[in-house]
Amino acid sequence: MRIVVDAHGGDNAPLEIIKGCCLAAEENKDLSILLVGRKNELQQIIAENGIPGNRFEIVDAPDVITMEDEPTSVLKEKQYSSMAVAFKLLKEDKADAFVSAGNSGAVLVGATLLVKRIRGIKRAALGAVMPSTDGPYIMLDCGANVECKPEYLDQFATMGSIYMKSCLKIENPRVGLLNNGTEECKGPDLQQQAHQLLKNNPNINFIGNIEGRDVPLGGCDVVVADGFSGNITLKVSEGWGKLISKVLRDMLTKNLKSKLAALLIMSQVNDFRKKMDYKEYGGAPLLGISKPVIKAHGSSDAKAFKNAIRQACVFAESGMIREIEEALAKE
Amino acid sequence: MRIVVDAHGGDNAPLEIIKGCCLAAEENKDLSILLVGRKNELQQIIAENGIPGNRFEIVDAPDVITMEDEPTSVLKEKQYSSMAVAFKLLKEDKADAFVSAGNSGAVLVGATLLVKRIRGIKRAALGAVMPSTDGPYIMLDCGANVECKPEYLDQFATMGSIYMKSCLKIENPRVGLLNNGTEECKGPDLQQQAHQLLKNNPNINFIGNIEGRDVPLGGCDVVVADGFSGNITLKVSEGWGKLISKVLRDMLTKNLKSKLAALLIMSQVNDFRKKMDYKEYGGAPLLGISKPVIKAHGSSDAKAFKNAIRQACVFAESGMIREIEEALAKE
Repeated sequence: MRIVVDAHGGDNAPLEIIKGCCLAAEENKDLSILLVGRKNELQQIIAENGIPGNRFEIVDAPDVITMEDEPTSVLKEKQYSSMAVAFKLLKEDKADAFVSAGNSGAVLVGATLLVKRIRGIKRAALGAVMPSTDGPYIMLDCGANVECKPEYLDQFATMGSIYMKSCLKIENPRVGLLNNGTEECKGPDLQQQAHQLLKNNPNINFIGNIEGRDVPLGGCDVVVADGFSGNITLKVSEGWGKLISKVLRDMLTKNLKSKLAALLIMSQVNDFRKKMDYKEYGGAPLLGISKPVIKAHGSSDAKAFKNAIRQACVFAESGMIREIEEALAKE
Repeated sequence: MRIVVDAHGGDNAPLEIIKGCCLAAEENKDLSILLVGRKNELQQIIAENGIPGNRFEIVDAPDVITMEDEPTSVLKEKQYSSMAVAFKLLKEDKADAFVSAGNSGAVLVGATLLVKRIRGIKRAALGAVMPSTDGPYIMLDCGANVECKPEYLDQFATMGSIYMKSCLKIENPRVGLLNNGTEECKGPDLQQQAHQLLKNNPNINFIGNIEGRDVPLGGCDVVVADGFSGNITLKVSEGWGKLISKVLRDMLTKNLKSKLAALLIMSQVNDFRKKMDYKEYGGAPLLGISKPVIKAHGSSDAKAFKNAIRQACVFAESGMIREIEEALAKE
């Protein structure tokens, strides 16, 4: 399995990205990693931090895409950036999958225009794998397409469903349409029309509309949304995740009594933290592209990035891109 | 202060509504409550439950609007329902404010067409007062208008801001536009255009776009949203609130050790529960109507309904409807 990694994407790049690659290589001996970035800078960081240099091959790319860059810069002004070069390696079959924690817009543009979409797919969707009390679910789109058409949502449902089956081994995943009520007639025109398409989609197990309150409680395995409301749901959930962490910390460190309480329930607190930690689930697959692309969270540390690489391997091994092609033929 | 109450609205009506009215009357001796509903049925429930009958006046209304009824039924088929009769009493100045835990759509239609909007207001908005780690905030619209125009959002901002000032005594409330990024150019057309209007609105303290993750962490005092994404944010937050409750309960009752821990941190857990309990904040004001209308949560129990009545009193006493009229004149 060969993974190409954008060394300069994300808030903690390149050090945490490099460390994440090391962890991934330790976890999976069959992994070969192409680390793309400013070769001299990366070699210096590797030497300074005593990182074993034999865990990956470095491919030189002189430029870096920042969060401030226009997404389309990956095609023109920054075509020699780590991200653009990494996409080209993926395109040329020098790697089986791609991982970056960088500028989401640039990942979307690069994947769509350099690597290309699966034939017949109208829009690629960013699918976040999120924790619920009932296990992980995927929500898509969560930001790649702020304005959607009903047929995009229909394809998102097919792709999300195949992802949950192939990569997370969930049998017959329940697909719900994010909406402001459970009745068919609820929501804006987009959701009303999408509902009718989803009802007749032969590739999915559609359970109807899902309301926001059922999302964190594991109401379904695939939450289909336009990129705007999906993004907001994702971020509201992240906010609540932070809130819970803070509340638990405050509650369990306030005074001597609460510190004693912390000792008594530490294992439950840790189990819960692990279950609800989005870092455990890696990054967001960009579904609809003709090769596996994973967008790791911008704030990824080494562990989160390692999990994103693991996810990229599972994605590449699953053969799900072929499954999407077959499903499209059925529609 | 005279409040008119729809006795048959909500999942726990009419018993919890009646109990809520009693609690409110005990809390505020200057309150007079008009309870509208099926007189015989209400009197029987009052007698059976040993409720002091002198706390309110009952106005007979033979019909009831259910959750399955069309919102417009309040105007025609069910014009003699408790909700419709209550709206007419409000309209005729027999009461200073209205409270119902019933069908939201019917509350919106009844308020808009029987009581009427404030002159110049294009759409009424349902504003949920929600808990954050940093105190309450109002989010509007959260469901009255699934499809919005930029100028509606601009008026929502003005009304939400006045509500937080007048009713929650927050000086110079920070207004944020719910969006999928902080940059001006982010989001669908609606949000991009609304951003420009909000920037130039002389009645508000606009702090820019707010992302979902900052909403539960108290990122601003007034969250402006279209009714669709606002509704989803509200319900995702409710889902996480439930999730936290469940997690804390499971964590603190698992075994003997965790029960001991529970004893040690009970006061912190209770403080947190109280702070994050939406029932503490009453119901959702319907802003933009020419008289105070409060939509209590459908699942309201007596305490939540009592708080909704208290909120209706504060709303009526605040004089904020006049303030909205004055603000509109400035725009």
